[in-house]
Amino acid sequence: MATILIVAISDHGSTTAMADAIAKGVRSTGGEAIRRTADEVDADGGSPLCHCDGLILGSPVHMAAPDWRLKRFIDQETSPLWQKDALVGKVGGVFCSGAGYGGGGGGGELAMLSMLADLAELGMILVPLPKNTPGFAQAGLHWGPYGRAHAEDMSPKGLTEAELETSYHHGANIARLAERIAHPGQVVFANAS
Amino acid sequence: MATILIVAISDHGSTTAMADAIAKGVRSTGGEAIRRTADEVDADGGSPLCHCDGLILGSPVHMAAPDWRLKRFIDQETSPLWQKDALVGKVGGVFCSGAGYGGGGGGGELAMLSMLADLAELGMILVPLPKNTPGFAQAGLHWGPYGRAHAEDMSPKGLTEAELETSYHHGANIARLAERIAHPGQVVFANAS
Amino acid sequence: MATILIVAISDHGSTTAMADAIAKGVRSTGGEAIRRTADEVDADGGSPLCHCDGLILGSPVHMAAPDWRLKRFIDQETSPLWQKDALVGKVGGVFCSGAGYGGGGGGGELAMLSMLADLAELGMILVPLPKNTPGFAQAGLHWGPYGRAHAEDMSPKGLTEAELETSYHHGANIARLAERIAHPGQVVFANAS
Amino acid sequence: MATILIVAISDHGSTTAMADAIAKGVRSTGGEAIRRTADEVDADGGSPLCHCDGLILGSPVHMAAPDWRLKRFIDQETSPLWQKDALVGKVGGVFCSGAGYGGGGGGGELAMLSMLADLAELGMILVPLPKNTPGFAQAGLHWGPYGRAHAEDMSPKGLTEAELETSYHHGANIARLAERIAHPGQVVFANAS
Repeated sequence: MATILIVAISDHGSTTAMADAIAKGVRSTGGEAIRRTADEVDADGGSPLCHCDGLILGSPVHMAAPDWRLKRFIDQETSPLWQKDALVGKVGGVFCSGAGYGGGGGGGELAMLSMLADLAELGMILVPLPKNTPGFAQAGLHWGPYGRAHAEDMSPKGLTEAELETSYHHGANIARLAERIAHPGQVVFANAS
Repeated sequence: MATILIVAISDHGSTTAMADAIAKGVRSTGGEAIRRTADEVDADGGSPLCHCDGLILGSPVHMAAPDWRLKRFIDQETSPLWQKDALVGKVGGVFCSGAGYGGGGGGGELAMLSMLADLAELGMILVPLPKNTPGFAQAGLHWGPYGRAHAEDMSPKGLTEAELETSYHHGANIARLAERIAHPGQVVFANAS
Repeated sequence: MATILIVAISDHGSTTAMADAIAKGVRSTGGEAIRRTADEVDADGGSPLCHCDGLILGSPVHMAAPDWRLKRFIDQETSPLWQKDALVGKVGGVFCSGAGYGGGGGGGELAMLSMLADLAELGMILVPLPKNTPGFAQAGLHWGPYGRAHAEDMSPKGLTEAELETSYHHGANIARLAERIAHPGQVVFANAS
Repeated sequence: MATILIVAISDHGSTTAMADAIAKGVRSTGGEAIRRTADEVDADGGSPLCHCDGLILGSPVHMAAPDWRLKRFIDQETSPLWQKDALVGKVGGVFCSGAGYGGGGGGGELAMLSMLADLAELGMILVPLPKNTPGFAQAGLHWGPYGRAHAEDMSPKGLTEAELETSYHHGANIARLAERIAHPGQVVFANAS
C-alpha cells in the first residue's frame, strides 16, 4: 500500500478542492493519502515527507509561478532532503488552480514546471497527465491537472466536475505507480556505492 | 521608419492569418512589414534578416514546441547571426497558433519560450503582450498572442476577431518600440570594444 | 526484460557517444537497447517506437532547443502516437550534448524541457537524473545528462569519463524502472473505459 | 535620466555583490540606481516600484527557482501593479547567483525564466544578456548574468571579476534602454482606450 503525501496551499478553496479529489483517487487504489498545507509540514525525521512513497505538490498560479508559501516549503523543507538524497526514486506529481487570465493559460505551464523542477532535483520520478485521462479536455495540461476556477476573462466560474475528475485520476495514477515502484523492494537507482 | 521581419510557418492558415494581422499592426505605425515563411528566408548579406529593426517569429504549437520547419530556420539561418552578434539590441517578439488540447493551453507557453530563447540568444530585446492589450482575455498569454483555432476539446472553431486584434496590436507595439530604439542611432549595448 | 529505444541526432559525435554509454547502461541491467537516429525511425506498426517499454531522446543544444532534425522526428513520428495514446504509461528520459557558451549552461535546460514536454504529452513517466548519480557534478542537470563537449568559453574539450559515466547510469535507471513498470503487467493508468 | 530599481535578496552576499555591480553599471550611464531588498519594498503610491523606469530582479537559485522571499515580493507587491497595468512598457531584467550543482547550470535557467515571467505579466520589455557582453563566457546565460559562487562540484569559489563585470554591463544596458524608451515621452503601447 503506497503512502502519498499531498502538500498544497489554497487561497479561496480551489486548490483544496483539487487536493481532496486527488486524495480520493489515491484511496480508490487502496493507497493512503496524507494531506498537509505548505505551512504545516516539515522535514523532521518523523515527518510524512521523509516516509512517503510519493509526493504531490499543488498551488494556485500567482504571476506564472507557485504561491510564495509553497515556495517557502520547497526552500525550507525539501532542500534538506535534497542534500541527503532522501527522496531519490520516489514518485512525484503536481497540480495547479488559477484565474488564468487569457486563453493561453495565464502561466500555469511555467508554474507547474517550477514545482516539477523541485521534484526532479529531489530525484523523483515524474508522473504526467496522459491525454486519455477523463476530464482532460477541460482540466488538462500534460504536466498535471489545472483547475481554472475563473474563465479566461477572469470572471469566477468555480471548478467543474471534469476538473475534479481529472484530479481524482491523477491521484490514482500516482498511487498505482508508487505502489508498483515501492514493492517488492524499491527500484534501485544508480548511486555512488 | 522601422522595418519588421515576420517569419512564420503555417499548417492550415491560422498562423498566416495572425501574421497578416501583425503586419497590419506594424504598418499602422508607419513601419514596414516584411513577410517570409520559414522556408524562404536566409542569412545572406542582402537578406531582410540582416537588415531589419525587429524580428517576429510565429508557429503552430506541435507537441509543446514550434513546428520543426521553424526550428530548421532557427538552426540554419539565425545561428550564423548569433556567431556574428548581428542582431544584438534589436527588437523581437513571438506568437503561436494551436489546437491546444486541454484548458491549460496545450503547451503554448513552452513553445513561445522556445522561440523567445532564440531571440534572447541573439541578444534581442523581447516585447511581451501586456494584459491591457485589446483582445487579451481571449488571445493572450503574456509572452505573445496565442490564437487557439480549436476549442479546448480540439473541435475546430477558427480564429476570432479578438485573436486577430491582439495580433494587430502586438505588431504595432513591436514596431513602435523598434522605431524608438533605432532612431536617432541604435541604443548602444555593451560590447568588448 | 525491458526494451529501450534511444533516438538521437548528432553533429560531431558527442551525442552519439552519450547514446552509446546510455545503451551500455541499459544492457547492464539485462535490458535491450535499440539505437536509431532521428532520421531513421518511424511510427509504423512494426517500428520499435510502437513496441518499446521506454523511450530516450537525445540531441545537441542549438539555440537553446533540440536540433531541428530531432524536432522533425517529434512532429512527424511521435504526433501520431499521441493521437492514439500509444505510449501512455511507458517510461521516458532525455539527454543533451552541447557547446554551451557561458557558465550558465547555454540553454541546455530549456532544450531538455522541450524534449520532456513531448514525452509528457505522450503520457510517459519521466525519469530525472538524481544528484547522487556518479559523475553528476560534471555532467549533471536534474533533467538528464548534459555532456558539455566544449568549455564555457566554447573551446573544444571533448566529453569526459564523468559525462559518459552519468549517461551510463541514466540508461540503467530508465531500464530498471521500465522493467518494473512493464512486468508483471503494465501499470494501469486511468482511461475513459 | 532613467531610474532603475533593483530588488534582490541574498543569502551569503553573492547576490548583493552582483546587485552592487549592476547599480554601478546603471550609474555609469548617468542613470539613478535604487537598491531594495525583497523584504523592504512595497507597492504603495510613493514607492520606487511605482515610479521607476526599469526594474531588475535578482535572487539566489534555490531548487531551480528564485528564493521564496523574492517570490513573496512578487506575489504581494507586483500583483497589485499587474492589476493596474502600472508597469506596462517599462524595462525589466533579471540576474541570479547560485551554487549550481552540476555542469548543466543547476536550474539557473528556469529560475531566471520564473522572474522574467513576472516581468512579462507586468507588460515589461525584457532585456537579455547579449553574448558579446564582457565576461559572458564565465558569467553568462542569455537570460541574464548568472554568478556561480560555487564550482560545479559545489565547492565555494566566490564570484569572479568576470561575473561582476557582466553584471555591470547588464545594468548599463538596461539603464540605456530605459532612458531611450522613457524620453521624450514613454513609448505608447496598445491599450483599450
